[in-house]
Amino acid sequence: MRVEDQGRTEAGKETGRIEAFSDGVFAVAITLLALDLRVPRPADLPAGTGLLEVLLDQWPAYVAYVVSFLFILIMWINHHILFTHIARNDHLFLLFNGLLLMLVTLVPFSSGLLADYIEHPDRRVAAVVYSGIFLLIAVVFNLLWLYAARGNRLLDRRADPRAVEEITRAYRFGPLLYFVAFALAFVSVAASVGLSFLLALYFALPRSTSRVRRVGS
Amino acid sequence: MRVEDQGRTEAGKETGRIEAFSDGVFAVAITLLALDLRVPRPADLPAGTGLLEVLLDQWPAYVAYVVSFLFILIMWINHHILFTHIARNDHLFLLFNGLLLMLVTLVPFSSGLLADYIEHPDRRVAAVVYSGIFLLIAVVFNLLWLYAARGNRLLDRRADPRAVEEITRAYRFGPLLYFVAFALAFVSVAASVGLSFLLALYFALPRSTSRVRRVGS
Amino acid sequence: MRVEDQGRTEAGKETGRIEAFSDGVFAVAITLLALDLRVPRPADLPAGTGLLEVLLDQWPAYVAYVVSFLFILIMWINHHILFTHIARNDHLFLLFNGLLLMLVTLVPFSSGLLADYIEHPDRRVAAVVYSGIFLLIAVVFNLLWLYAARGNRLLDRRADPRAVEEITRAYRFGPLLYFVAFALAFVSVAASVGLSFLLALYFALPRSTSRVRRVGS
Amino acid sequence: MRVEDQGRTEAGKETGRIEAFSDGVFAVAITLLALDLRVPRPADLPAGTGLLEVLLDQWPAYVAYVVSFLFILIMWINHHILFTHIARNDHLFLLFNGLLLMLVTLVPFSSGLLADYIEHPDRRVAAVVYSGIFLLIAVVFNLLWLYAARGNRLLDRRADPRAVEEITRAYRFGPLLYFVAFALAFVSVAASVGLSFLLALYFALPRSTSRVRRVGS
Repeated sequence: MRVEDQGRTEAGKETGRIEAFSDGVFAVAITLLALDLRVPRPADLPAGTGLLEVLLDQWPAYVAYVVSFLFILIMWINHHILFTHIARNDHLFLLFNGLLLMLVTLVPFSSGLLADYIEHPDRRVAAVVYSGIFLLIAVVFNLLWLYAARGNRLLDRRADPRAVEEITRAYRFGPLLYFVAFALAFVSVAASVGLSFLLALYFALPRSTSRVRRVGS
Repeated sequence: MRVEDQGRTEAGKETGRIEAFSDGVFAVAITLLALDLRVPRPADLPAGTGLLEVLLDQWPAYVAYVVSFLFILIMWINHHILFTHIARNDHLFLLFNGLLLMLVTLVPFSSGLLADYIEHPDRRVAAVVYSGIFLLIAVVFNLLWLYAARGNRLLDRRADPRAVEEITRAYRFGPLLYFVAFALAFVSVAASVGLSFLLALYFALPRSTSRVRRVGS
Repeated sequence: MRVEDQGRTEAGKETGRIEAFSDGVFAVAITLLALDLRVPRPADLPAGTGLLEVLLDQWPAYVAYVVSFLFILIMWINHHILFTHIARNDHLFLLFNGLLLMLVTLVPFSSGLLADYIEHPDRRVAAVVYSGIFLLIAVVFNLLWLYAARGNRLLDRRADPRAVEEITRAYRFGPLLYFVAFALAFVSVAASVGLSFLLALYFALPRSTSRVRRVGS
Repeated sequence: MRVEDQGRTEAGKETGRIEAFSDGVFAVAITLLALDLRVPRPADLPAGTGLLEVLLDQWPAYVAYVVSFLFILIMWINHHILFTHIARNDHLFLLFNGLLLMLVTLVPFSSGLLADYIEHPDRRVAAVVYSGIFLLIAVVFNLLWLYAARGNRLLDRRADPRAVEEITRAYRFGPLLYFVAFALAFVSVAASVGLSFLLALYFALPRSTSRVRRVGS
């Protein structure tokens, strides 16, 4: 096919638009999270209860919001890192990326569910859904990367093999750790959400200079 | 007109912004779909019914969500493929593209309608609207492409005639197939939604290496 | 200032990001319009009334939706045309553009207002707000263009003076025509909304080959 | 690491995508503000009260909307100015930027809170939250800039030291001024919101030709 010949430029343009669309979905999903923070209507304030109390009582919504925001932000940062190495795409890659985006758009839903049910007897169900979505995202993210990296299928020819290898190694642990948070949800909601929070912090904070260099390069 | 002389660069910039705007609308519409997945308020849970049951009872909303997500994703992927061949634009083209986007923004509405009415006596109306929007999108998408491709009106001069011809042939069947799903909605809601689901899968999965190559090139 | 020296490239990058931000706001606003199309909850259907009747009864919402969608689409197309001639920006220009975007984000509100009140005794108020927002947008859009074009303040040095002059002439009528729609709202809601609809069609359809060429160049 | 060698191009691409993602979040957040402007349902109009009165009674929502819109717009303009000087990024920078975006997505919430409670006995709580979010944004924005500018860590090598110094000096006052608005909220809601409004106007309007030149260069 002739387009093949146009090489790098054409390919650059293609992943450019995938990144733009993905950025859009990430940006909308991360901003819609804030819709789970509901303004209590003045008429609904229980008699004798002040706004401050009601707002403080919504603390589970704030925890779910912060954890979800950090989670999506980290996924975006990682997505961004992957695409500095990926130069081409094919149909299956677009589907894996679409599946990833679909799961990301579900986070405002699962986040709202957890916020509303964290003090309800059925909170376990909410926590299982919440951590289950995170687990699925971590799994699909790995599939996306492995599909692109296996045999340098879609990587930039100039991609550094050691950097690629390092990414593969670093991402491998995500699904395992989120599986633990998922399994914990059946036992203890607090432990599961707490672990998700720690994982978000752990992945958000730079762990070593090598990582900083990788992100910043 | 002088701008004409700037050739390719200027044209590239113009379709670039159409793609950016379209990507934005696709990304917002696909993310808003998730707003149809409603978190049941704890106070609204029927007595003796658990959250899990209520969530499972919402299965029509999940089906409508997945089918609609895949549908918009496929439209975006196809939109993306078209614009690798389109290098110029004119006023009518912008209008066709605008009409396409208008119909895409209606999908969260028709999807929510189907989810809410799939077990209601009036589900047929909902299914007709749902599949009718898909049919209209498939038709307008073909008009957009035929308008651009007819006589190479807006195509890149380097576009491969065989690739163009192949796209024209492949897209021709979309309206026919979605017309069948539309007609089925008058007879059987399950059959119509089932067909839409199969069509989404069919168009989503790569059918042949030639298709893979076209998308990936 | 040194940055001055980098000339065209730097300037190109700057308007590039203004366009990206503006595209984002236009895309979100135009997609949010569809949220005004409410899915009637099954429990709220009046006894003996079918879904079809209820959906057909919402016709004012569809009219408001289509007119508003076309209006925002046309504003985006025009915004897009202007920026093919604008190469630089300054603080006041960013403010005019911000004011334009603020008014555009109000369209889903005014559109929902009109849809909800078109059969209510107070429909005149709704129609005045609806057409008033359109009028303000038409005015600010002209200010934005005149500010950029006056003495070629922010135009690309290669901009064709005749094309610039033609745009100035063409846009001059927008505020006048939308003022008529605004004034009509005090007298007859139907006449005002009808005129807005005709104006949307008139501006949407290509009027002459010269216009087509201008958009497509 | 090899990527280092690709220098400027690669770096440009990276900040490009951070800007695109940030633009997306800014654009969605600024457009969602308008969702705080609620269309009063016809059935909810108090007997004997016209739509006009009800709309005019919503004036606090309009004030909160305009102040919040201007605030986010100014933050976007400033973000845009910073990135004309920033050419590289690292992990901590991405986190500071993420924290800034998180706070920006909270503005529709705090803005809705203020609008709903400005005539309620608990308005002080709402005003403290409202101005507190602004204060936090001003602080994080300064941290973002200082982190990038300190020792030219992430700046373009061609960045003019005087322009950099001038930005540092200009932004330093933001947190102080918003701290005053925050402190005022505990004393007088009107004074605090009034000051936020004046600050928005002050930062929005060009103050001197030097500033105009900086933005426009």
